[in-house]
Amino acid sequence: MATTTASESSAAPALKVAILGFGTVGSAVARILCDLPAGAPIRLSHVFNRNVERKRVDWAPADVCWSSEFDSVLSSDADIIVELIGGMAPAHDYVTRALSAGKSVVTANKKLIAAHGPQLSELARKNGAALCFGASVAGGVPVIDALQDGLAGDRLYRVSGILNGTCNYILTKLESEGVTFAEALTGAQAAGFAEADPTDDVDGFDARAKLVILTRIGLKAIVPPEEVPCTSIRGVQAVDFLYAHELGATIRQISRSERKQSEVFASVQPALVPIESPMAHITGSLNLVLSSGRYGGQTAFSGHGAGGHSTAVAVVSDVVAIARGRAKAQAPHANAVSLPVSGNFESKHYIRFTVNDRPGIVAAIANVLATHSINIDALLQKPGFDREALPFVVTLEACPSALLEAAMADLRKLDFMVQPPVTMPILTKEL
Amino acid sequence: MATTTASESSAAPALKVAILGFGTVGSAVARILCDLPAGAPIRLSHVFNRNVERKRVDWAPADVCWSSEFDSVLSSDADIIVELIGGMAPAHDYVTRALSAGKSVVTANKKLIAAHGPQLSELARKNGAALCFGASVAGGVPVIDALQDGLAGDRLYRVSGILNGTCNYILTKLESEGVTFAEALTGAQAAGFAEADPTDDVDGFDARAKLVILTRIGLKAIVPPEEVPCTSIRGVQAVDFLYAHELGATIRQISRSERKQSEVFASVQPALVPIESPMAHITGSLNLVLSSGRYGGQTAFSGHGAGGHSTAVAVVSDVVAIARGRAKAQAPHANAVSLPVSGNFESKHYIRFTVNDRPGIVAAIANVLATHSINIDALLQKPGFDREALPFVVTLEACPSALLEAAMADLRKLDFMVQPPVTMPILTKEL
Repeated sequence: MATTTASESSAAPALKVAILGFGTVGSAVARILCDLPAGAPIRLSHVFNRNVERKRVDWAPADVCWSSEFDSVLSSDADIIVELIGGMAPAHDYVTRALSAGKSVVTANKKLIAAHGPQLSELARKNGAALCFGASVAGGVPVIDALQDGLAGDRLYRVSGILNGTCNYILTKLESEGVTFAEALTGAQAAGFAEADPTDDVDGFDARAKLVILTRIGLKAIVPPEEVPCTSIRGVQAVDFLYAHELGATIRQISRSERKQSEVFASVQPALVPIESPMAHITGSLNLVLSSGRYGGQTAFSGHGAGGHSTAVAVVSDVVAIARGRAKAQAPHANAVSLPVSGNFESKHYIRFTVNDRPGIVAAIANVLATHSINIDALLQKPGFDREALPFVVTLEACPSALLEAAMADLRKLDFMVQPPVTMPILTKEL
Repeated sequence: MATTTASESSAAPALKVAILGFGTVGSAVARILCDLPAGAPIRLSHVFNRNVERKRVDWAPADVCWSSEFDSVLSSDADIIVELIGGMAPAHDYVTRALSAGKSVVTANKKLIAAHGPQLSELARKNGAALCFGASVAGGVPVIDALQDGLAGDRLYRVSGILNGTCNYILTKLESEGVTFAEALTGAQAAGFAEADPTDDVDGFDARAKLVILTRIGLKAIVPPEEVPCTSIRGVQAVDFLYAHELGATIRQISRSERKQSEVFASVQPALVPIESPMAHITGSLNLVLSSGRYGGQTAFSGHGAGGHSTAVAVVSDVVAIARGRAKAQAPHANAVSLPVSGNFESKHYIRFTVNDRPGIVAAIANVLATHSINIDALLQKPGFDREALPFVVTLEACPSALLEAAMADLRKLDFMVQPPVTMPILTKEL
């Protein structure tokens, strides 16, 4: 077995690592730390959790301090605080106090970093501490490092990806098994890929937090998370995959952002992607990040985005970066500037209507679209569906999504609709 | 357009960068450096090339010093030497002297790093300089950083990939156009994807140097390049793709290495890979690197492996790392140990025989394989070929490749062979 570089021998005493939150990821981090060979430059010193007694494990060294008092961890000699509690409170408070006390922080908390990353980075800098959050996006895929350092010589103008494994799992189930959204969701919950309340995942908020972080690191643009439009995948049905396949495409939840001059386009939404694109090859709960640079073209990163072990690898890699003295040189938000954001990408679109069939429907739809100066590209109708709830698809030539949204407001009012129409952009392979 | 982080403002004066070798990559590096905004922490100061006068460009600042004398660059105030000459001499001498003089070095020279990386890293450390070689493997794909830092928290046991764009270009042409190897090679040369002398690429030596570097950084194992077995792709024919497709696979030049306890398995060879694997999705001149870790599972990195711009991005990213003070913290060969290496992987195999058909051929082949205790899995024969040069395929159950090699020595002697048999491992999706 290869020896991790975390074990590189060092004359300095090992840095002491405190873990806040001893759930799946926390215990996986502790496992890796406890598996390190003697002489490693980092070691587990503290575990903090509410009611910590029920969390104790027999495989941790006897000198690890188990605590339910954050203040006692804060006042201890721990050098690095690993925050794995998640969410805003009390994580925000704990991270703020740790950095203020000059302790370095490693976190997997995408929500916290998306909302407060720049301020927390600045707080770290002022206090001579490091703040690392490689685990906050795409779990075990080291994409933050790659955008920050590995592609520092390029000028990135676009980042995109499949950032939520739950959505990808559900969508690939709809595709491969033809089940309903509700069935796919229940399956994902049973398989441990979705929470009891799936809102954050399926409605795009989880992916949005990650996209905001990637936008900041890759495109050097700070955008408020709440201003990035999210479209839920709840409207997508198995029939959409039939039509997508006919168009040489499949459907994925795509997060993307693009920097132009002084504005950013960003969105999280289900979209048609060409069957030969890297996006289409990502199945199950895998994650993918694509970056496009002015000089180097497109680079792709993929792997396990979630799960205790993958996320733990990212956390420990950040701890190692701090121990190696590399993390403070990173300045993760250096030079990022606040920019206005909208979801108004220009692209081709797919609309699936479900109608109570009668003569004149296509004419009515075409008229509305013409009024908004939107051109129809093609009309697809698969046989074998009930005339009272007939799904058919219109594809549109490229237009800004805001223009389509205005047209959709009119289309939704037409009296033959038996379900709200579903719109998705049709992306190109380059995305 | 996003502002590269190379532009982060800094009170310190910009580090001076000297480029050795002003070919495609060198001029692309110079372009990026010259495009940086005022206040960037790095700037182009010297260009060295033989007969440098014919290389002068009008877009470089007037204060850049153009020189054909390495000694004058070495004794100048340049802080960072970017070595883009390639090959062993004089690059090895120049890099050694630059590091000895305390100047940091960035190189894209895979041959040099594969052969002398550990010694040069140690020389850099002793002299307080940095040695960076992110551009030596997979061009613009930041995989060295990722294995070194981003996955530092894992214990990697396998790295593999498609590391030579020329071979991938040729093989995908054989597959998509059914041309001969000679035709595909001529096409690759005309398209600028292959050298006039293609030996380094098609016979595997280029990929081998990269694999040796990945093995050192990812698996912490130092193996001598010349001991890693290479099999040329010259034997692969369009008919092999027909048979591979029948087996649910395609053919790629695969470089792979795996660390077990105290030995390393490594090889560069054409191989069958399942059509649904990440390897199969890599077409044209793209590169792919896969890493497998004990904790985080498989991670994939892909993008443009060669070409002036992609490689230049990797070079400038390394220069930025040095300017940020991050590079010296890397210790790229720390903890790597010298280990014995062989190509004796165990796997299923594919053999394509081309025979002058007559009764008893299958029996003769089966007898030889049985003598060597190798089990036949299946026999495939496509119709429509000439009986005097009949290609057919035998697939074998898993066995160590050394066992197959012994059997092949006997099989090659059989008098009905009209071409040497072609053997390839049949890899699994996990590779």
